[in-house]
Amino acid sequence: MDHQFLDGYRETDLVRVREKMAALNLGALIVSDLSVIRWLSGFSGSNARLLVTPERLVLFTDFRYREQAATEVGIAETVIASDGFAPELFSGAYPLGPAVGIQSDSMMWDEAQRLCDRLDPMTAAVPLVSFFDDLRMVKNRIELMHLQRAASISEQVFEMILPLIGTQATELDIAAEITYQHKKLGAEKDSFEPIVASGARAAMPHAKPTASHFRPGELIVIDMGCVSEGYASDQTRTVALGRVSPENRAIYSIVADAQQLGLTTARCGMSAAELDGTVRGYIDRRGYGEAFGHSLGHGVGIDVHEEPRISSKNSRILGENMVFTIEPGIYLPGRLGVRIEDTVVLRSDGAHPFQRFTKKLLEL
Amino acid sequence: MDHQFLDGYRETDLVRVREKMAALNLGALIVSDLSVIRWLSGFSGSNARLLVTPERLVLFTDFRYREQAATEVGIAETVIASDGFAPELFSGAYPLGPAVGIQSDSMMWDEAQRLCDRLDPMTAAVPLVSFFDDLRMVKNRIELMHLQRAASISEQVFEMILPLIGTQATELDIAAEITYQHKKLGAEKDSFEPIVASGARAAMPHAKPTASHFRPGELIVIDMGCVSEGYASDQTRTVALGRVSPENRAIYSIVADAQQLGLTTARCGMSAAELDGTVRGYIDRRGYGEAFGHSLGHGVGIDVHEEPRISSKNSRILGENMVFTIEPGIYLPGRLGVRIEDTVVLRSDGAHPFQRFTKKLLEL
Repeated sequence: MDHQFLDGYRETDLVRVREKMAALNLGALIVSDLSVIRWLSGFSGSNARLLVTPERLVLFTDFRYREQAATEVGIAETVIASDGFAPELFSGAYPLGPAVGIQSDSMMWDEAQRLCDRLDPMTAAVPLVSFFDDLRMVKNRIELMHLQRAASISEQVFEMILPLIGTQATELDIAAEITYQHKKLGAEKDSFEPIVASGARAAMPHAKPTASHFRPGELIVIDMGCVSEGYASDQTRTVALGRVSPENRAIYSIVADAQQLGLTTARCGMSAAELDGTVRGYIDRRGYGEAFGHSLGHGVGIDVHEEPRISSKNSRILGENMVFTIEPGIYLPGRLGVRIEDTVVLRSDGAHPFQRFTKKLLEL
Repeated sequence: MDHQFLDGYRETDLVRVREKMAALNLGALIVSDLSVIRWLSGFSGSNARLLVTPERLVLFTDFRYREQAATEVGIAETVIASDGFAPELFSGAYPLGPAVGIQSDSMMWDEAQRLCDRLDPMTAAVPLVSFFDDLRMVKNRIELMHLQRAASISEQVFEMILPLIGTQATELDIAAEITYQHKKLGAEKDSFEPIVASGARAAMPHAKPTASHFRPGELIVIDMGCVSEGYASDQTRTVALGRVSPENRAIYSIVADAQQLGLTTARCGMSAAELDGTVRGYIDRRGYGEAFGHSLGHGVGIDVHEEPRISSKNSRILGENMVFTIEPGIYLPGRLGVRIEDTVVLRSDGAHPFQRFTKKLLEL
């Protein structure tokens, strides 16, 4: 039971959530983001709302999840709201105080309107954006264990699929194998559809695998991750089928050096934008600035994309026990793509990657 | 290229969308539901908005999807909105008229607020709920072909995994195999995480597969589906490992008879609630009304759950070329679950299931 290990940390998080609520004079907070609900209560079902008040923590879900909630949730009361959340919420059983916080970045406009329409005229609805990001960003010991486990599963799977790459295989074959082996090794599921992209297709950072066979001399980007105990992994390696041209090898080296620079540069106290800028500057000076069109990385936790976003626009300061990816790339449309990605945990002495697999160019 | 086949139908759908807009005096409509965007434009990327005006159809996406949009989208102009949708939308290039429709059931409150804040004071924002449901519900010839194809892939996979069920296998093994074979047979992905639930776990309609081994005499619910060309499939069969007790066999028969009753009862002109009620009434008279806790079915299309919901609360009239599931079940907590599900297309002469696999109880 997950909650036996995590509920202690959740109690601490809950204290912090209530402190933030108090600072905003919120008598209640309605959580609609399922990832936040999982983080704060342990519940992993697909239909729920969580009510936080200074005294209570109440999980609302429907009858389908009665047993699951009983198994997963230790920290909150569970209420089966068969006729919908709003009727239950406004049944009078839950005093909401003078102001109710609503996650406006994870609740549809329609639901928000319906809630607001039913609110007591003396109660204000306060839209909240990114309310939980700063709390979720910093991982505790158990979360780090789950994140390491998810990363290790994916890395094992990566080693299993490498021998399958050859001229007889297609991108789709390898993608299917990744998904399969993730599950066989105990992951809940992929954290995103695997990207297996060779040759010119690798120039699309979000390429979908195709039925194309691998061809000698091509670079192949493999970006994959899984979910274990609710926590995601994310990793990318670029490998070659056979020998690549000196030019392509040179491009690979620039990305590998940039990625290494990211690993050695990352430290507590710097901003996400600084870290992005350092690596971007390096690629730029090597002449490929235009070919690195996405941000350097993103946080990883219950969501495979969360804060801290490692982007030129994010002034957030990086701190201890934050977990994020470092994944520079070079994409030349119509020709090739290279991306190398580790997920790291930031400690007082710098970035520690969860992945161990070599970043030397493998020519299979 | 999908759009070569579907764009003719999309033109017709677009005319109907514009008629609905005109009836509401909408000068523009902002589509945020990615399934609707795929349905109306063909675009399958994960970040987009679609603007419909009486004269124009404009797809906004980001740089990552430039190539994909060029490949997939024939019917709309594509605009790469690098600084976000709102700045592009309010750049002056798109006259919005006196009222703009916004999908309030698929746009977050925060985004809706930001759009409303930027709207010209002379332009009203009109929240729309379920705006496209009646149009999407009725499938055209190509959509039906894709839906049949997705169903056939899942049915082939189901036949492949049956021989693997034995005391040596776990629920997770079978679930992993389903996902793998879906992809190997050409599906894009699962339409939902496969449910493989045996014995008492089958009493949870949304059970997650576990590492438990199958045991002789248990009933096993296998609920699975895939996505092919953007369209979903959904099917359930309940099988047994070895001989089951006469009592369990009797419960199976009630569900099988109820499902057959659903198939023969469904006809154009009846309401969804009537269809649900007929099947529910049968199960109720056999003494298991309390044990059938979910609605009879749901529409299937680009979304695996869409309109028409076949529920006691839905007065919608069923019509030709609607596609939906018929999936009664009996769930006895702590003991067993049985569910049998086909996806059908409704024709003038009744319901035609996409699935052909037997609904006799298989004792493996």
